[in-house]
Amino acid sequence: MNLTNRLQSTAQIAIEQARDAGLPVERAEQAFSDTIRPRLVQMLSPLVIPFVRRSGVRLTELEPGRVVATMPLKRNVNHIGTMYAGALFTLAEFPGGPLLLATYGMSRFIPIVTDLRMEYVKAAKGPVTIELTLTPDEIERIEAETLATGKAEFELRGELKSRQGEVVARSVALYQMRPKRR
Amino acid sequence: MNLTNRLQSTAQIAIEQARDAGLPVERAEQAFSDTIRPRLVQMLSPLVIPFVRRSGVRLTELEPGRVVATMPLKRNVNHIGTMYAGALFTLAEFPGGPLLLATYGMSRFIPIVTDLRMEYVKAAKGPVTIELTLTPDEIERIEAETLATGKAEFELRGELKSRQGEVVARSVALYQMRPKRR
Repeated sequence: MNLTNRLQSTAQIAIEQARDAGLPVERAEQAFSDTIRPRLVQMLSPLVIPFVRRSGVRLTELEPGRVVATMPLKRNVNHIGTMYAGALFTLAEFPGGPLLLATYGMSRFIPIVTDLRMEYVKAAKGPVTIELTLTPDEIERIEAETLATGKAEFELRGELKSRQGEVVARSVALYQMRPKRR
Repeated sequence: MNLTNRLQSTAQIAIEQARDAGLPVERAEQAFSDTIRPRLVQMLSPLVIPFVRRSGVRLTELEPGRVVATMPLKRNVNHIGTMYAGALFTLAEFPGGPLLLATYGMSRFIPIVTDLRMEYVKAAKGPVTIELTLTPDEIERIEAETLATGKAEFELRGELKSRQGEVVARSVALYQMRPKRR
């Protein structure tokens, strides 16, 4: 999240300078962490990894415990004009990172994908959407286990759907969460 | 394989015209199918699917029953500078098509990937290579079963290795072979 981190640092420097100048900055800080940072992650995270950026994938919704992403068909067709298997993989893999950032913040944990299985059900002839969610219980378990033992395993399962709501593929991703070294 | 098909058609038209002109063309035809077509498939297949082309993947070896492909790190880094999981997926998925073309030719069968599982073992800090093979017995079984029953299931397993020979990921792809409609 280099670009997001850089923008966040810039915003924080601006807030520090305002504080040094004796201005009231609490509401600015609150607005930044509640509203601006999540929007920055949503808008910028598809741009951070060049491979992901080139696919044109977009995050249409992002909040703690939930992300929705859409992959356009354009740029991602295979030799028979339907969506390439690798673009569907990227649609299933990439949103996990922003989901975990939106859920746990940027500074405490590092998620690593250890295994990802794609099942291809039907050819995709248009844009494809995926929704990934974590329940409040699962969010709590992952956090507690990572803090207590230094790691936690968890799974994100997705259904990749056409605009008509048909399932074109399914994904099962395994992640390992670790605490960030300070 | 649109581009390869088009080049193949052009070469065949040239051979037909030579035959119509009364020239001896048997050796040209033989050279085309033995030497030129496999090289065309090897050189051009990474260019056919834009998503694959953008990754810069190359086929370094291709023959019936065997393919070797290499993915460069450049263009394919993730946010921490190692190879993005999706680039490793593409390295595992894409060479299956050319391998099957080199093994069975272009006109008889259509392979479809139905399932692909990636296991990520180690971060890749440089180019990554995969070799996929089919044994003579397996080649024969797939052909016989497809002809007899209209389809055959088979698996391609790969180890994705760094230049130093370390395994950075493993892949298991399931395919279904079907006869091409005439």
